[in-house]
Order: sequence, then C-alpha cells, then structure tokens
Amino acid sequence: MAAPLDFVDTPVTIRYAETDQAGVVYHAHYLVWFEVGRAAWCQSRGVPYAEMESRDGRLLLVAEASCRYKAPARYGEDVIVRTSLAKSSDRILRFRYEVRTKLGGDLLATGQTAHVVADRSFRPARLPEHYRERFGLRPKA
Amino acid sequence: MAAPLDFVDTPVTIRYAETDQAGVVYHAHYLVWFEVGRAAWCQSRGVPYAEMESRDGRLLLVAEASCRYKAPARYGEDVIVRTSLAKSSDRILRFRYEVRTKLGGDLLATGQTAHVVADRSFRPARLPEHYRERFGLRPKA
Amino acid sequence: MAAPLDFVDTPVTIRYAETDQAGVVYHAHYLVWFEVGRAAWCQSRGVPYAEMESRDGRLLLVAEASCRYKAPARYGEDVIVRTSLAKSSDRILRFRYEVRTKLGGDLLATGQTAHVVADRSFRPARLPEHYRERFGLRPKA
Amino acid sequence: MAAPLDFVDTPVTIRYAETDQAGVVYHAHYLVWFEVGRAAWCQSRGVPYAEMESRDGRLLLVAEASCRYKAPARYGEDVIVRTSLAKSSDRILRFRYEVRTKLGGDLLATGQTAHVVADRSFRPARLPEHYRERFGLRPKA
Repeated sequence: MAAPLDFVDTPVTIRYAETDQAGVVYHAHYLVWFEVGRAAWCQSRGVPYAEMESRDGRLLLVAEASCRYKAPARYGEDVIVRTSLAKSSDRILRFRYEVRTKLGGDLLATGQTAHVVADRSFRPARLPEHYRERFGLRPKA
Repeated sequence: MAAPLDFVDTPVTIRYAETDQAGVVYHAHYLVWFEVGRAAWCQSRGVPYAEMESRDGRLLLVAEASCRYKAPARYGEDVIVRTSLAKSSDRILRFRYEVRTKLGGDLLATGQTAHVVADRSFRPARLPEHYRERFGLRPKA
Repeated sequence: MAAPLDFVDTPVTIRYAETDQAGVVYHAHYLVWFEVGRAAWCQSRGVPYAEMESRDGRLLLVAEASCRYKAPARYGEDVIVRTSLAKSSDRILRFRYEVRTKLGGDLLATGQTAHVVADRSFRPARLPEHYRERFGLRPKA
Repeated sequence: MAAPLDFVDTPVTIRYAETDQAGVVYHAHYLVWFEVGRAAWCQSRGVPYAEMESRDGRLLLVAEASCRYKAPARYGEDVIVRTSLAKSSDRILRFRYEVRTKLGGDLLATGQTAHVVADRSFRPARLPEHYRERFGLRPKA
C-alpha cells in the first residue's frame, strides 16, 4: 500500500459573508479555512473528525493558532488550503497550512495550529492507538 | 414594583468583521444581533439565558427567524437593538426586534424569531413555572 | 438547447465553526448557506455573482430574509442547499431554498430571500438586459 | 495632561453564536475580539478606526495574527480584552492582547497582531503625522 500523501489540498469557494469592507477576506476566516483543511486531512486518513469526538471521545483543543498573510484573498477567486501534519505525538497534534489561489497557485497565507488531545471533560488524553498508524505518528518511546 | 418595560434596548458596536465588501453589515449578522438583544431581554427579567440552559435544562430552539432590511448599517456607527416579547406561551416564545442607528434613531431593520422550548434532548418542553411570572406570560388555561 | 433546471443543488460540508454549544448548527449560518446556494444558482446561469458586481456594477441588496427550521443540522453530516428563483423581475429577485441532509434527504429548513437590484451607490437599478434571458425573467411589459 | 494608559480594557459579552459544540468559544472568534480591543484602543487615542479609513485613507492590513489559548471561554461569563501597542512605527503597527474572565481575571488567551499601513489601493503607506503623537510613536529617524 502506498504511503498517504504528506498533504491534502482542499478547495474553498470564498463566501461573500467572508469578505469585509476593505474588499478582501477578513483575516479571522483563514482560521476557519484551516479547520476545513484539517477536517479534510483527518478524513483522508480514514478518521472523520466527527467520529473522533462521538465514537472515541477525543477532542482536539486548539492551543495555538497563527497566520501570516501574504496577499489578500478576494471574492470570486477560489482558494486551495494545503494541510499537512507537523511534528506531533498522540498527545499534541500540529498542523501546517498554505492558502493559495486555485488559479495560478499564488501564495496568500501560511499558518499553523497546535492541538491538545483531550477527553470529553477537557482533560489531557491520548489518541487511541489505531490513530497512531493512520496519522503516521511515531510509536511512544 | 413597577412593571418591567415592554422592550429592552441593547447597544451594539459594529465590528469590522461584520461588514462585507459592499461596505455594509452582512445581512446574516442581524440574526446574531437579535440573539444579543434576546439575551439582554432575558437578563432584564432576571433570567440569564446561560442559566436557563445550565440550571433549568431548557433550550430555546429557533424555529423561525426573519428580517426586513430597510437601510444598510455601516461600520463606525453604533446601533441599538430593541427587543420585545411577542405572543408567547410556556412552550413557544416569540420575540420582535428593531435595529436603529444610535445617533438619530433611523430604522435599519425589523425582525422576529420564534423559539420552541425544549429539554436537553431537544424534546418539546415547558418553561418552569417561575419563568411565567418573570416573562409576563399568561397562566395556562 | 434544454431549459435550465428550475433549481440548483449545492452540497455544503458543515464546519465545526458553524456549530454552537447546543450541538447543532447555529441558525444564522443558514443565511450564509443560502448565499452559497444563490451564488451557485447564478453561476449555473452563466453569471458569476462576482462579475455582476465588478463588470456590470450591479449589487443585490438583501431586502428580506427568512428561514423556518424543521430539524437541526449536525456536524459530520453534509447538507444540500436547493436553490430556485421565485417570482422576480429585473428590479427585484426572490430566491427560495431548501436545506436537506445529503444522506437521506431529510428536510432541515426552508427559506427565502428578496433582493433589490442596485447600482454601486445603492440606488435602485435594473439588471442589464442580457440577465433577463439567462435568469429566465419575463420581458418588461 | 497625563500620558494615556498603556493598555485599554474592553469588556466583551460572549455571544451564543460564538460557541461551538465542544461547549466553548470557537477559537477563531478571539481574532474578532482582538479587533474589538484594537478599535477601542484607537478610539481611546482619539482616532476612531472608521475615520482612519474614511477620512485619512489609511487601512491597517493584517500581516500576522497569532493566539495562544490557555483556558476555554464559556457562554455566560463575560471577558475582558486588554489591548496594548507593541513595537510599532508609522508603517507597521503591532498590538498585544490578553483575554481574561471579567470575574476573577483568569487568563484565557494571549495574542498579537501586526498590521501594515496601506493606502486605499493596498500600497504600503505611512500614518499621517498627527497619528504619531496620538499613538505615542517615535518620530522617524
């Protein structure tokens, strides 16, 4: 079986609701696009995020989020969110993102998020073992 | 004791995030402002909405929402959301809203929402009795 | 050439950002989904909404929006927004919407919006003539 | 005349719309709260942000934004956004933020944003001179 790709590309159609009066996408929406990319990444590994919560009782609490904005995104052009897993363990997951125009591939933004694995009571927890393989995480030392 | 006022006025400072590229507030945010007004109305009757959920286990499920937009709201001008209770019972609450400019009082929008009282499992339920008095609801026939 | 379909179906993947603490999609987001459906409808008639604004200088100002919520939408299930044009002219466009679960087709909500055609200065205007044919609008009397 | 305070505290009432199905405020909304704090900071220096755009033709383009989340914010408790200016010039403004519970002052999050001063065409520009004094910026070398 081939190794899964290192990244997942997710197309996002810009919503008018996401623009602001400067005529570009309001910056906070990029964090939502990152969520869209992250969900697609989990899905690509065979783990819908909804199931992580409902079946395995694991939440990914956002501990850090950051974004660098290189060029504005504009209504009428679609974008691609490229999501990859960065240095992670079964306790902390880190993701990296690139946002590019669909046409032309111009880089609009880069970002990252860090997530603490928690149980339903928000206590730190570990990802169940079968996630390790699917997410390509190193076995615990 | 004086009867509570029929309406509650809540000031809302427009957020840049709420504007769109037409240079006005995006229409869906008015429903959020209605929520802000509704929460203030409940609070004014001595019932923080958060407690309705956490202490009394009652949710207000939105069954209908509508808005008529008369004039655009613009960043830099504050607005007032005037909220009043319309024909309601201990099973269904209806609210009415007016959005006006703080300066000048120009009418920007009117709206209404209807809410089904439900328990935590989303089953139809009744408001606990002490709400009836606080909300000024008629006793059940 | 076949007549265009009366409606356009647009799939929407629910975002975690769109849920609220009741565990369902927050009601105001349906208006944004309606926008997504409306944009897809315009696109299907060969008129990207972004071009209506940038090339033809026509805005669709939301004059009315309403939604009836039948059953909650939940994270993890995709929905379909079905959009159709209701009684309209080159001055006022009206759209109708249905939101259904992608799997099973359960009706979650219905809604409608009315839009005044305006120029860039927000003055009432008419849609340019070539829209009439594309949108299937009756010629002016 | 007393020097202006180094920071500005802005109360924010959490909106139900801002919660997610984990029962806490969705992380992207903190960036919007930062905007609310930033606008209040500008206002406290006598420069409504709306006027910076409309009168002086200066936009603050977000170049970077980041947030560290320490503890979740919950519906029903108000928060305070403390905003201060970090190392800045008339070309790049940087702000720092702390989000705390209003009751108790527990630290929920810290963050920062960097903004490039631009003209209406999104070209890099300088803040007009009278901003330097109001914002307490060092004169140019």
